[in-house]
Amino acid sequence: MTVARAWRIGVAGLGTVGAALLDLIDTRKGFAPIDGVVSVSAVSARSRSRPRSCDISGKIWYDDPVALASSSDCDIFVELIGGSDGPAKAAVEAALKSGKPVITANKALIAVHGAELAALAEEVGVPLLFEAAVMGGVPAVKVVREALVGDDIQSIVGILNGTCNYILTEMEATGRSFADVLAEAQRLGYAEADPTTDVGGFDAAHKISILAALAFNCTPNFDATEVEGIEQVELLDIQMAKDLGYRIKLIASAERVEGSALVRVHPSLTPLGHPLAQAGGALNALFIESTRLGRIYLQGPGAGAGPTAVAVAADIADALLATRRPVFQGPARTLPQIEAVDPSRLMCRAYLRFLVKDEPGVIAAVSETLAEAGVSIESFLQKPVEGAAGVPIVLTTHSVAESVLMAAVERIAALSAVLDRPRMFRIARI
Amino acid sequence: MTVARAWRIGVAGLGTVGAALLDLIDTRKGFAPIDGVVSVSAVSARSRSRPRSCDISGKIWYDDPVALASSSDCDIFVELIGGSDGPAKAAVEAALKSGKPVITANKALIAVHGAELAALAEEVGVPLLFEAAVMGGVPAVKVVREALVGDDIQSIVGILNGTCNYILTEMEATGRSFADVLAEAQRLGYAEADPTTDVGGFDAAHKISILAALAFNCTPNFDATEVEGIEQVELLDIQMAKDLGYRIKLIASAERVEGSALVRVHPSLTPLGHPLAQAGGALNALFIESTRLGRIYLQGPGAGAGPTAVAVAADIADALLATRRPVFQGPARTLPQIEAVDPSRLMCRAYLRFLVKDEPGVIAAVSETLAEAGVSIESFLQKPVEGAAGVPIVLTTHSVAESVLMAAVERIAALSAVLDRPRMFRIARI
Repeated sequence: MTVARAWRIGVAGLGTVGAALLDLIDTRKGFAPIDGVVSVSAVSARSRSRPRSCDISGKIWYDDPVALASSSDCDIFVELIGGSDGPAKAAVEAALKSGKPVITANKALIAVHGAELAALAEEVGVPLLFEAAVMGGVPAVKVVREALVGDDIQSIVGILNGTCNYILTEMEATGRSFADVLAEAQRLGYAEADPTTDVGGFDAAHKISILAALAFNCTPNFDATEVEGIEQVELLDIQMAKDLGYRIKLIASAERVEGSALVRVHPSLTPLGHPLAQAGGALNALFIESTRLGRIYLQGPGAGAGPTAVAVAADIADALLATRRPVFQGPARTLPQIEAVDPSRLMCRAYLRFLVKDEPGVIAAVSETLAEAGVSIESFLQKPVEGAAGVPIVLTTHSVAESVLMAAVERIAALSAVLDRPRMFRIARI
Repeated sequence: MTVARAWRIGVAGLGTVGAALLDLIDTRKGFAPIDGVVSVSAVSARSRSRPRSCDISGKIWYDDPVALASSSDCDIFVELIGGSDGPAKAAVEAALKSGKPVITANKALIAVHGAELAALAEEVGVPLLFEAAVMGGVPAVKVVREALVGDDIQSIVGILNGTCNYILTEMEATGRSFADVLAEAQRLGYAEADPTTDVGGFDAAHKISILAALAFNCTPNFDATEVEGIEQVELLDIQMAKDLGYRIKLIASAERVEGSALVRVHPSLTPLGHPLAQAGGALNALFIESTRLGRIYLQGPGAGAGPTAVAVAADIADALLATRRPVFQGPARTLPQIEAVDPSRLMCRAYLRFLVKDEPGVIAAVSETLAEAGVSIESFLQKPVEGAAGVPIVLTTHSVAESVLMAAVERIAALSAVLDRPRMFRIARI
């Protein structure tokens, strides 16, 4: 048990999560397992005067988060600024260098600079915790990092971006286009003004990079993560996939492959009855498969101010109670980085969609090209779609080398009867 | 980081879980976050010569688990004996008194004697961990104990006994009776020779008592837990409930009620589309609802040697890395016990099934008795069942005080046209 004392938290970043955290800490004063009082002593944000839902009177104000991080006005530093570089990174480094435990919700920072920051934290001997970076309040980091430490994780597959999941769910439910639903999500505050991080798959990629590092005893390597967003998913694809028994989800996955790990984010087809297909709206969901345990499943609100604040609070308690764990699975300086996997080794099953001219011989040309490449077709669907410029042809393939498939798709794209860039989405291995 | 050293584990109880744990530790030697080597140094079981799947040559043998627990041949004591009292309790006490961290998979021990053992562990200043006691390798204890420490849990509802879930799933799938499926489960080793602990609901009750204590900042109080097993669930009920859109599951629940917590285990009707209805076979599944986070969901194999050994391994790592947490949410001597809730305060919706003589006026008599008591009927189903002695009448009620409902059921049971003891199962609040 720690000695009873007053723990002073410094919070940099006072958006919705920061406000929820201030409210949580003000309401609770402490956490049951901690023998002491916890309070937010000092804060920093871009504008002191901006109207916000939390009360910052009585808190020491810093214009500069780095100054707050290195000050003696707090014992623990919470970084809620965001972004892989700039003030967030500078502030986290300053806090660690001044000997303070750091808690961050910043997935980009940990995915990109995790190895270096972990090494610094371990050198200084303070915790660097980031539960809030992945799945909000659903403790995916804790589960992978702590609960499965005695098992060999084989794969982690799930839905890690609530904005994309919301957009895909809404497109299916309302029959509206990606652009329409995105615009509405932006109006409602579910999507950022610049939505690239979410809809481009980068947010999910940051998160799966972090989980992969914890799962496979490595440090994160965001550059080795394959990323494809949902911008290419059209309503037509959602409908055609459904006709074939699938729902399109943005799936983040990390799989152990000999000597390394395959980490990627892709729109993927999930069987309609599968829990990942059924996790709709802004839900996040994750399957973790390991040798002895088998498969466990976690699901919950993966973002939002309240859930994220709960994750930060858990990290505050852990920072005060459990300070002896390395940041990742082993001391950062001893861990390898996750390496990119040569895509020529990969096999997949895929959904392909071509928009073609309504003229004789087109189907034959498409199917011959696939046959020549050795791509075996599992199911085939052609149906006229009202208002479409051409005729969509949709098919799913049996397992095939990705490089072979992509080359065949390129050849089909070059046919004069093909009107639009072909779409290729993988069928999730779940 | 801890200093690199060799950690010696003493294991008492060498059933399937003990054997899996020895294999896990022998295979891995250590865990990534621990700077040292972990090995099983000493073991104890009922019979030294009994054939078992693990290799105990080279381990120090103890006939008496208490002697092993207090010996200097191990640094950490793992209790896999089982049972709330007897040698398990004596050995855990001896280990704690000799200053050793204790890890146990024993739900009965923690549910019944958790407060007293926690106080002892905290007095000595060593961890007492029990992740493996609930949901096997699915880290329900860690999630409730650590991840939600900054939130107010309102309810925990789920399936915590794999044997019962397997039996109910098989009854529905194969159309066989409870007795038939139980006998088969016993032959296959899925159920114990004396199945009372599982099918009587006691195992699930031990587990939910532990989770309730962690969720509501109390110590466990098994005596305050209402327990009803699945022995009264007939194939007929499973089929009739399905006709009404429900699946019968053994549901364990803990709900915050003013000033206390309602903790119970009952066969309950779950809507067919609900994740708890869809968690079949030996799966365990749990919803945790809290104020800020909302609802999170955990699912996975809730028992079995491998999963349970993984949970014990996580606790070994935690014992070496995170020794400063209280056993429950706060120091055990400061926590209240969970108190039993006065059932007259409770409301429920229920499924009722009566087996009646096929003669005029019976339905009128049943429905009049319910109407007089103020029990409002939501749906009603009567259909002849081949080979049945009488005619089953099934109905579901709107929300009603449990005491009122039970009194009305007693009056109906006394009617001369009623052939069998009425069945009453609650409709799960999920």
